[in-house]
Amino acid sequence: MDKVPGKDDLLFAHERIKSYIHETSVMTSSSIDAIAGCKVFFKCENFQKIGAFKARGAMNAVLSLSPEDQARGVATHSSGNHAQALARAAKIVGTRAYIVMPKTAPEIKKKGVRAFGGEITECEPTLADREKTLAEVVARTGATEIHPFNNYDVIAGQGTAAIELFDAVEEPLDFLLVPVGGGGLLSGTIIATQFFSPKTKVIAGEPAGADDAFRSMQSGKPEPSQANSVADGLLTSLGDKTFPIIKDGVSEIITVTDEEIIRAMRLIWERVKIIVEPSCAVPFAAVLKEKEKFAGKRVGVILSGGNVDLERAFKLFASVD
Amino acid sequence: MDKVPGKDDLLFAHERIKSYIHETSVMTSSSIDAIAGCKVFFKCENFQKIGAFKARGAMNAVLSLSPEDQARGVATHSSGNHAQALARAAKIVGTRAYIVMPKTAPEIKKKGVRAFGGEITECEPTLADREKTLAEVVARTGATEIHPFNNYDVIAGQGTAAIELFDAVEEPLDFLLVPVGGGGLLSGTIIATQFFSPKTKVIAGEPAGADDAFRSMQSGKPEPSQANSVADGLLTSLGDKTFPIIKDGVSEIITVTDEEIIRAMRLIWERVKIIVEPSCAVPFAAVLKEKEKFAGKRVGVILSGGNVDLERAFKLFASVD
Repeated sequence: MDKVPGKDDLLFAHERIKSYIHETSVMTSSSIDAIAGCKVFFKCENFQKIGAFKARGAMNAVLSLSPEDQARGVATHSSGNHAQALARAAKIVGTRAYIVMPKTAPEIKKKGVRAFGGEITECEPTLADREKTLAEVVARTGATEIHPFNNYDVIAGQGTAAIELFDAVEEPLDFLLVPVGGGGLLSGTIIATQFFSPKTKVIAGEPAGADDAFRSMQSGKPEPSQANSVADGLLTSLGDKTFPIIKDGVSEIITVTDEEIIRAMRLIWERVKIIVEPSCAVPFAAVLKEKEKFAGKRVGVILSGGNVDLERAFKLFASVD
Repeated sequence: MDKVPGKDDLLFAHERIKSYIHETSVMTSSSIDAIAGCKVFFKCENFQKIGAFKARGAMNAVLSLSPEDQARGVATHSSGNHAQALARAAKIVGTRAYIVMPKTAPEIKKKGVRAFGGEITECEPTLADREKTLAEVVARTGATEIHPFNNYDVIAGQGTAAIELFDAVEEPLDFLLVPVGGGGLLSGTIIATQFFSPKTKVIAGEPAGADDAFRSMQSGKPEPSQANSVADGLLTSLGDKTFPIIKDGVSEIITVTDEEIIRAMRLIWERVKIIVEPSCAVPFAAVLKEKEKFAGKRVGVILSGGNVDLERAFKLFASVD
C-alpha cells in the first residue's frame, strides 16, 4: 500500500489475516480496577501467535504482496518479535524469509526465527551494517523488504487489534492506551479508532529513557531516541510514515520510568495472572501514573507481548524491591 | 444437599453462581500441542475470582443455605484458597464468614480473607486444634460449617468448570484431566462428565509425595496422605463423600514428581504466558509423563489456580535447572 490506510484497508486487512492469527481475549480484573481507579480492558496480544501483536502486521504485509513478489521472498533486519513474525508469515504462504540479525542477538531469538524456517544473515551490531547487509540480501535474492513499522500494510495489520477490542467491549471506551516504539501499533490504533470508535482518545505510553515520540510531538519533527530503557521493544525512533499519523492522531504521550514499568509489569503478573514483557507494561504504567486523568473511566490497554525470559523478569522484579 | 448431586443439581448450581463468577476462558497453544503431542484445551480457573476454582463451590454452598442459615454466617478451617472463596461468598450475600486459620498461616493469606470482611480465629497448626477451634466457633455463632471439599454443594459448584469447558470445545474431549487433593474438583468433574460428555475419560493428576488418592484406589479404602509436595493445594486426603464418587468414576490417577510438576508449571508460564501455581500444573505434568496415552487425542486440562508468590515460583524454577 502506498498511502495511509483507510477504513476499508483495515477491514480488509482483518478479513485477510483472521484465519492466521488468534482473536485474543480481553481480560478484566476487579482488583486491577480497584488499584487503577478506573475500568480497565486488557487486549491480550501477549497470547497472540509468536507472543506479540507483530504477528498481525507481518501477516498482512506478506499477504498483500503480489504472487510474484511473494515467490521471491521477504526480508527485514530485526532482532525482535518482527523477525519471528515475518518468518512465520513467510512460512504460511510457502516462501522464504531472509532475516538480518546482529551477531550479538541472543541465541533464543535466532532459534525462534529458524523454527519457522527463516534464513538468518548475521551482521555487525550497528544500524549502518544492518542496513547495508539487508540491502545486499535484497539485491541478491530479489526479496521484498518488510519494515517492522514504517510500512502501511504493517500499520493496517497492527490496527486490527483495536478493531477486535472495540467489538469486544459493550460500550465505547473513553481511552485506549498503547505503547510507542517505532509507532506501527500506535499508528494502526489511531486509524482504527478514528473509524470504529471516534469518541475514544488514543494515548501512548513511552519509556522516559527512550522518549523520542514525546519529544517529537513537542518539536514537530521526528527526534532520535536515546534508547535507554528496560522496555527493549520500544527503543527505536518513529519513521516518516508513522510520525505524521501519530502527530495528527495521538491525544497525548505519557512517559514512565523503568521503575514504574517494572512495578506495573509485576502488578499485571500478580493480579491478572498473565505474563507480559517490560515493553508491554508501559501503557498500564502510564494509567497508574496519571490516575486522576482516568478516574472512573473506561480504559482499553493493548498488552503488546509476552516474550520475556523468566530469569530476566525475576531480576527486574528484584531490582525494584 | 444430602445426596450425591445429579444432572439438575449441577445445572442449577451453574445457574445460581453464574453472575458471581467468571466464565473463564479456554486457551490453546500450538507450541504446547507440539510438545505434548496432543491437542490441549486449558480451562483457565487461574483467572477465576480469588484466582482459583474454589470460588465456584463456596459460592454455590453459601447460596444453597436457607435465608435463616445464611443469616447466622458460615465457617470453615482453611489456610488456602477456600478460606478466601468462602469469605467472598459470605460478603456477597451479606453475612459473616468465620475462618479458623493456623497461627503460622502466611500474612498474605490472612490479608486476603480480611479483604472480604472474613473474621479470623487463630489456632495451633494441628488438624486436631483446627477442628476443635472450628467446633467452638460454630457453637458460639450458630454458623454453618462449609467444608472445603467434603460437601455436596461444594462438589456441585466445582463441577460447573467442566460444564463450561464442554460447552466451549466444539467436539467432545477424549480425556479431561484435573488435579486431586481432597477430591472436590475431581468429584464435581466426574459427575459433570457423566452427564454432559459421557465419552470423555476423567483422569486425575496427583503429586507422588501426596499420592493418597492413587493408593486409595488400589486398597479400596481412603488412605492418609504423606503431604509431602510442592503442590501445596493437594496435600489433603479424600473425604467420605469424595472417595466413593472418585472410586466409581475416575478412569486413572497418574502420579508425578515435584520436579515434573515444576517443569510443567514453567512450560505453562513460558508457552501459554499465564501464571499457574504448582498444584495447578499437576495434571499437565501427567499429560507430559504419559505422552503415548494421549497421543493425537483431544485433552482438556482444568488449570485450578494461579495463587503463587512470584519469589517462591522463581526459587522453584531455579531448583530444577
